[in-house]
Amino acid sequence: MEVSLNPTERVDDLLTHDLKIIQSREVFSFSMDAVLLANFVSVPIQKGRIMDLCAGNGVIPLLLSTRSKAKIEGLEIQQRLYEMAARNVRLNRLIEQIEVFHGDLKEAPQRFGFGAYDVVTCNPPYMIGNTGEINKNEYVAIARHEIHCNLEDVIRASASLVRSGGKVALVHRPSRFMELVTLMRKYQIEPKRIRFVHPKLGSEANMILIEGIRNGKPDLKLLSPLIVYEEDGQYSQEIFKIYYGEEAKK
Amino acid sequence: MEVSLNPTERVDDLLTHDLKIIQSREVFSFSMDAVLLANFVSVPIQKGRIMDLCAGNGVIPLLLSTRSKAKIEGLEIQQRLYEMAARNVRLNRLIEQIEVFHGDLKEAPQRFGFGAYDVVTCNPPYMIGNTGEINKNEYVAIARHEIHCNLEDVIRASASLVRSGGKVALVHRPSRFMELVTLMRKYQIEPKRIRFVHPKLGSEANMILIEGIRNGKPDLKLLSPLIVYEEDGQYSQEIFKIYYGEEAKK
Repeated sequence: MEVSLNPTERVDDLLTHDLKIIQSREVFSFSMDAVLLANFVSVPIQKGRIMDLCAGNGVIPLLLSTRSKAKIEGLEIQQRLYEMAARNVRLNRLIEQIEVFHGDLKEAPQRFGFGAYDVVTCNPPYMIGNTGEINKNEYVAIARHEIHCNLEDVIRASASLVRSGGKVALVHRPSRFMELVTLMRKYQIEPKRIRFVHPKLGSEANMILIEGIRNGKPDLKLLSPLIVYEEDGQYSQEIFKIYYGEEAKK
Repeated sequence: MEVSLNPTERVDDLLTHDLKIIQSREVFSFSMDAVLLANFVSVPIQKGRIMDLCAGNGVIPLLLSTRSKAKIEGLEIQQRLYEMAARNVRLNRLIEQIEVFHGDLKEAPQRFGFGAYDVVTCNPPYMIGNTGEINKNEYVAIARHEIHCNLEDVIRASASLVRSGGKVALVHRPSRFMELVTLMRKYQIEPKRIRFVHPKLGSEANMILIEGIRNGKPDLKLLSPLIVYEEDGQYSQEIFKIYYGEEAKK
């Protein structure tokens, strides 16, 4: 595939899915959070339309293509990451299924259509803008801090993009949990499935996976905890399975 | 101790705490939910004032007396359970520390004082009134269904009874989780600690323990999951420790 690499970029295997992914430690590389969100979200298998906001280098659209035949779109505000995502789509010969766009999620409903999607996913910046130490690397800072959008922008845009009865799935940090569920309800996304991710069985959660339904009825499932590491420091069976596939043996 | 038993009542050991408890399968016997709430709630150790709403036969006040020297009060709307709780206090020679009252929690703030407590606990009826099959046994029905009070009544009363900066701790079912946190915020009880209880590691949660602070700042901790049973059907080490004490060996 005639895809070029920029300085600092490299091509990595994307888990076990025969997918490759261009990334760069200096600019953007995917996190476990994105992998777990792509694994967690409920997707239509045969058809439909999925939007991934804050798409970065396209890791979530790429992973979703292994679970769904739906049309998958991604939106990324950083030009350099958008270009990386576009090359990732070409590199994996997925231009028929995945399309990525450069732009601001705040303008997405006007641009792509109100209620146009069956599913919206987002792995947003976690940290409140201008609080804490902001990474001097601008790419990393924008991906991690609420510089171009805050949590309310993300949820407002997601709620506008998804159809009534469609799903919005997000990953976020526990400290923002109450804000997250309060905003979801404010924008008529009723939380339906929550999964806490704990580094170890005896540890506090350090990540939340949450899925809501636009105009859904209140009825929440609190799924089994997702434990990342066993006591011995090895990945848990479940993480191992998500990362290395069904047949892998520990 | 000169405490009499009514028909169907019996005296059981209350876990390992050298406490006894009068209960009755036909009228009221304590549940794991109450034990876990009494273990979960943050209590002042040396002094203060604690109120347990929906106190039943007084199991939570009795258990809290092993963790705190604070004054502990209990309020129960059912005359027969209130009397059972009062006998349980006498049976355990705890009349200096625990006082139970008969009455309606909706009138509690006027009766006991707005902002008068450091901590309020409640293991309320879980089931929405008049939905599902209501137990024909009136005692059981009132304890399980929202017949005399609903969740909003419980949270409104708790929020009125607790001082600013004081804690409200509740146990409830996952299906009511969104309603629970929404109502807590409505009455200025900011959720601060949440623990999900799962029957097994791979199971959905079937119970939620939650503690909030009156006028607290948003900053939530999602504690490690509490797993009740090991794969082999035995109690987990943590449950074993809560029920049978520190030194017990499995």
